[in-house]
Amino acid sequence: MPPPQGRRASNEARKRRAARRAAVELSEEHGFGAVLMPAIAERAGVSERTLFRMFGTKAGIFWHDPFLERVATRLDEDTAREDPLRAVLEAVEATARAMDHEDRDLERRRRALVVAEPELLGVGARSVMVSGRELTERMTPPDADDAERLRLTLFAAFAAAALGAVPVDPDEPEEQWVAALSAAVRVAAFGPLSEPGATSGR
Amino acid sequence: MPPPQGRRASNEARKRRAARRAAVELSEEHGFGAVLMPAIAERAGVSERTLFRMFGTKAGIFWHDPFLERVATRLDEDTAREDPLRAVLEAVEATARAMDHEDRDLERRRRALVVAEPELLGVGARSVMVSGRELTERMTPPDADDAERLRLTLFAAFAAAALGAVPVDPDEPEEQWVAALSAAVRVAAFGPLSEPGATSGR
Repeated sequence: MPPPQGRRASNEARKRRAARRAAVELSEEHGFGAVLMPAIAERAGVSERTLFRMFGTKAGIFWHDPFLERVATRLDEDTAREDPLRAVLEAVEATARAMDHEDRDLERRRRALVVAEPELLGVGARSVMVSGRELTERMTPPDADDAERLRLTLFAAFAAAALGAVPVDPDEPEEQWVAALSAAVRVAAFGPLSEPGATSGR
Repeated sequence: MPPPQGRRASNEARKRRAARRAAVELSEEHGFGAVLMPAIAERAGVSERTLFRMFGTKAGIFWHDPFLERVATRLDEDTAREDPLRAVLEAVEATARAMDHEDRDLERRRRALVVAEPELLGVGARSVMVSGRELTERMTPPDADDAERLRLTLFAAFAAAALGAVPVDPDEPEEQWVAALSAAVRVAAFGPLSEPGATSGR
């Protein structure tokens, strides 16, 4: 049982995961369009009211990119404003290591559904933009000039896009996945057309 | 009058621009939500049938990023497969130079509406992804390996994002706008965190 002070947050996280799992499973079985909120609520073991409070809409359950959202939450603002690349790399690595096999499996299946569903693809793309903006805000010092702000905006947008291009395979060794994610962040920082090694810093 | 062989394409382009202009003006006047297709058709001087054929839905009129769409169309496949950066730079420059003051003004106003409208932001983000994919296809040689394919996918996605971050101001001198767009493409290629000048090649 989690310690009392973490219990509420943990209950919330548990409910979100149950809802995501139910929505993914039901959409795999019947197609996204045929799945209704009451069925998701029933399978997840939460009330419809809770489902609406947590996600707003059915698409909302698929919307937010849980990985990027967690990266943004874990980003240390002090480090981010001094060394954005290091801060993003650390947040990405910590996020990846905190995900268990089921988390990664659900993420893989969620992505497959989003890509196949035009309605979800649109809201998914928006969610990536929103996460990119959150990353930017945490990295940008209040006194940054326009050029610096643009540089960080583009780094965040590129990182969000690049992280989304790394496949999720729950059976791949964690070390390999973490390395692929770190490489994606470096490509976002130093560009896909740079000579490999020339700017990678390691 | 355009030469006979270009007349049909030119008529189509004229109708698309009239529809875009009508949709932008009416949304500025009444808000996107309150504007209906018949009103857009009437102001644009085209039939509703034509409007549906060209754009599908009301959001569709705002969806597609005309700039990126034109860049993808102008991309020379032969050059793109040999030197993707040069090909994208040339296509971007040619696209920018072919836009007149009204084109740029409409684009500025379209973007302002899209950013303010959550529904449009989602479909807009999707359209950027689709254009990114079209760019990738034109750049990727059929025999490219996975690493090369990913590199080009990320370059296209980054370029689409970076071009969208360059403000459109119809009163700015064309040279300055072209320079800003070229700089954005270079950032997509060589990364926002690279030392300025170190990889810019010029």
